[in-house]
Amino acid sequence: MQHAIAILDSGVGGLTVVKEIMRQLPQEKIIYFGDTARSPYGPRPADEVRLFTRQIVDYLAQFAPKMIVIACNTATAVALDDIRRHVGIPVVGVIHPGARAAIKSTRSGMIGVIGTEGTIRSGAYEQALKRISPGLQVFSLACPRLAPFVERGLFGADEAEDVVRSSLEPIMNVPMDCLILGCTHYPFLADAIGQVMGPGVKLISSADETAREVSAILYHKGLLSESADIPLHQFFCSGDPALFKQIAQTWLSEQISITPVIWQVPNIV
Amino acid sequence: MQHAIAILDSGVGGLTVVKEIMRQLPQEKIIYFGDTARSPYGPRPADEVRLFTRQIVDYLAQFAPKMIVIACNTATAVALDDIRRHVGIPVVGVIHPGARAAIKSTRSGMIGVIGTEGTIRSGAYEQALKRISPGLQVFSLACPRLAPFVERGLFGADEAEDVVRSSLEPIMNVPMDCLILGCTHYPFLADAIGQVMGPGVKLISSADETAREVSAILYHKGLLSESADIPLHQFFCSGDPALFKQIAQTWLSEQISITPVIWQVPNIV
Repeated sequence: MQHAIAILDSGVGGLTVVKEIMRQLPQEKIIYFGDTARSPYGPRPADEVRLFTRQIVDYLAQFAPKMIVIACNTATAVALDDIRRHVGIPVVGVIHPGARAAIKSTRSGMIGVIGTEGTIRSGAYEQALKRISPGLQVFSLACPRLAPFVERGLFGADEAEDVVRSSLEPIMNVPMDCLILGCTHYPFLADAIGQVMGPGVKLISSADETAREVSAILYHKGLLSESADIPLHQFFCSGDPALFKQIAQTWLSEQISITPVIWQVPNIV
Repeated sequence: MQHAIAILDSGVGGLTVVKEIMRQLPQEKIIYFGDTARSPYGPRPADEVRLFTRQIVDYLAQFAPKMIVIACNTATAVALDDIRRHVGIPVVGVIHPGARAAIKSTRSGMIGVIGTEGTIRSGAYEQALKRISPGLQVFSLACPRLAPFVERGLFGADEAEDVVRSSLEPIMNVPMDCLILGCTHYPFLADAIGQVMGPGVKLISSADETAREVSAILYHKGLLSESADIPLHQFFCSGDPALFKQIAQTWLSEQISITPVIWQVPNIV
């Protein structure tokens, strides 16, 4: 039996992490849970996000995963430490990998961060960045409209750039040299964000960087897949399976050998 | 007392890792050992490189480091597993971080690797890459002239591009999209290598990537420095201290607060 990497998110945003793990670690089996019925997590109180995250982790325990990836910045910001204490397997969040990548990337020491209200309010990126390198300047901005826009499947729509532009207006002229996409939904909008911020600002995808860190931790823990079989991934969501399936298939389209199995998850209020 | 990161290399190449750790982890204290008297390691038999690496690690143990970084690809290729068994602290090599970065970077799946004879002969990069992603195509080339050229302090010389060009000739037209600088000496020659390979080939510095992975592992192990003091680094070399000091100061010049203390290390034959 091949033990899977369990990946969870408030909805479809964590699929950006899934896509990168499929690309960077093609032999690893993935079990994904998108809590689409209760998305977005961004505006919710921290205690509620912690409770929801714990419920999903307990649900996923039945599959005996070898690692848990909290592929949601809001949940990472408020629930990572709790989940680490709760389970006996490695738990990877999406905030520190993005912070480390920004530190590697920046030359000016001026770093932007965009995320949900919950992520920005927590100050988690600023803490992660300054814990490592106290001299950095960090510019944070909550963009509450972006994740719900992606959840509605509208990331390819004409109005995407308008929504992105009005959201980013407050930091458009800040002299940063990199911008952390501090919400796993944002890579869906990366083209529009890049257009608005211009070529002088490198976008750091917490999704891409997390996939790479998952690879490093599996290696250091001796947990890389030994199987030569093509892994059969499984997808779960708590809300409308048709919309989830449509977004997942659009986003993961270049990938082969996926069998999306979308279930209604019971017992989660 | 602030426990240091101990970094070792056959000579000055590991200073590329030092520079990146100083930049990415400015609060961490570094102890560096360059085995300049016995450089280069590349042409030496694997058993000899293993012995030398073990001697240096035993020498550095007196400083009670919190982590060992084998900042030499040749030594990583043949001695990493031995050193991991030998010490009770985390040991980071330079091969896997570069391999993971190349996997994250490549779009075509065609990856080049240049290194010493010892590194290329070991097949360590190809194994690391294909262990994670078996479908990759890897083009490996030994460049025995490059590391000794850097050790002589000639990386800024006019002939640098000629030496690089003639070394890289066999892979200049290979359709790779990234090239791993699989020797920590090669970032000294990155400008010339970039000129020769052209803008379509992204250079992956195992030094930069290792610094980032050191950051990740210190975080996951709870070993990040708690000290707010400016760290006082220490440098040791087994050969000519004047040449070592000159190269180190040239390479690390943008950095402040360094006090290079260059010692002759006794009892190493």
